[in-house]
Amino acid sequence: MVDTEHRLRRSDGHRVRLAARHGELARPTAGLAQGFVQANLVILPERDAMAFLRFCQANPRPCPLLAVSEPGERHIDGVGIDLDIARDLPRYRLFRDGEAVSEPLDVADLWRDDLVSFVLGCSFTFEHALIADGIPLRHVTLGRNVAMYHTDIPLQAAGPFEGDMVVSMRPLRPADAIRAIQICTRYPQVHGAPIHLAFPEAIGIRDLAAPDYGDPVPIESDEIPVFWACGVTPQRALERARLPFAITHSPGHMLVTDMHDTQLALL
Amino acid sequence: MVDTEHRLRRSDGHRVRLAARHGELARPTAGLAQGFVQANLVILPERDAMAFLRFCQANPRPCPLLAVSEPGERHIDGVGIDLDIARDLPRYRLFRDGEAVSEPLDVADLWRDDLVSFVLGCSFTFEHALIADGIPLRHVTLGRNVAMYHTDIPLQAAGPFEGDMVVSMRPLRPADAIRAIQICTRYPQVHGAPIHLAFPEAIGIRDLAAPDYGDPVPIESDEIPVFWACGVTPQRALERARLPFAITHSPGHMLVTDMHDTQLALL
Repeated sequence: MVDTEHRLRRSDGHRVRLAARHGELARPTAGLAQGFVQANLVILPERDAMAFLRFCQANPRPCPLLAVSEPGERHIDGVGIDLDIARDLPRYRLFRDGEAVSEPLDVADLWRDDLVSFVLGCSFTFEHALIADGIPLRHVTLGRNVAMYHTDIPLQAAGPFEGDMVVSMRPLRPADAIRAIQICTRYPQVHGAPIHLAFPEAIGIRDLAAPDYGDPVPIESDEIPVFWACGVTPQRALERARLPFAITHSPGHMLVTDMHDTQLALL
Repeated sequence: MVDTEHRLRRSDGHRVRLAARHGELARPTAGLAQGFVQANLVILPERDAMAFLRFCQANPRPCPLLAVSEPGERHIDGVGIDLDIARDLPRYRLFRDGEAVSEPLDVADLWRDDLVSFVLGCSFTFEHALIADGIPLRHVTLGRNVAMYHTDIPLQAAGPFEGDMVVSMRPLRPADAIRAIQICTRYPQVHGAPIHLAFPEAIGIRDLAAPDYGDPVPIESDEIPVFWACGVTPQRALERARLPFAITHSPGHMLVTDMHDTQLALL
């Protein structure tokens, strides 16, 4: 497995997907196929898909849509050659009545002709751009998950989907925060610019040391907390909607696409 | 004079310059010829001009060069039709041996064949862009001058020109600060993005309530101070260089050009 991972780091999206499809990869995708866009996945029956599509359209910062499939289709134009969305992720999460009930390696046996797949941008893309620019990210340096928090920033509701925004937080020195805003502005399809900085309480966060998801990271005295809209937002809205049936990627086990990270840059 | 000013608000750069040239305008230019670029002016003998040009090139954030004249020329290509740089500003400031000795209405009688004119971008352009985007600026609302401060941010020296950066400060709410960074990034020729935010002491500012130039403004509890490189920087470097002879605009009495503010936007 270690050899496979080493090989897949310098690989491309197609090879990572084939490894996942053939049972050679069942671990998180961070660091694999470097330079290729990794994405969040949501799969819903057509009866719920229209409301979710409206929800994403109305809340693009936490829910940036990269692609939506035709109902029943396991291939999605532009996402990846030879894509089988039901088998090409390392691990999925199955929800029934809003509860996560299993984490299968593929969902081919659960496939139905009415399922619609949503591919959503992920913070990996802008994090790669920040690191490539020389901006250190504390959670990456420490080998932790990014710290994420519930806020009181309301989302625009659509059908059963509603709630407040979840944000990720990265502590940065002021000059790096300014540069990060510039870089992330170029990437609206992966959450775009930060939505807030400094003053956690202004968006309803009481204690930065106690994130609601992920791991806490220390904030130095010359740093400010910088907050981005987070891809956990749609996952949480999905759970709150208590749909009879839904599938997502398992956290960290992303859809690795054929798109290059830089292709998502506005300019 | 009030009628003249009212007329000149909706006028263009050429008409404002003609009014200044003909003695009909000897007051600050803020608010005149709205939408047209107003600029800082520095006039130096050719023997000092090369070092000043290198100084601006090395420190583009505080010293953003829009145009440089041929030696002796009172017209500068691209800045304004029919321009006479020695007469078209409402008021000038004459320096001898580093001391401001007078504030003449024109400098035609001081003109020499070796004088080089430098036209530098001014914060009015990005302030207009911020206000047009709905971002309130405290000093504008209060009718005060912007607060400016000495810092310990060193400049790159060139010949006799050296020193630390002077910054302007505008208090903004976090979401407005993020938006202001995006907007100002589009305008690198008028100081560009902020160079710092929060933590005044990190750039050597001890007391925000005691600016070194301009007027203090209150900072509300939900606001952070945001700092931009300031056009007072080259003026201060000029004074410190103690040149035998130099001319600038008198503060607030700017060169009004034929360029539209939006022409300075990168995109």
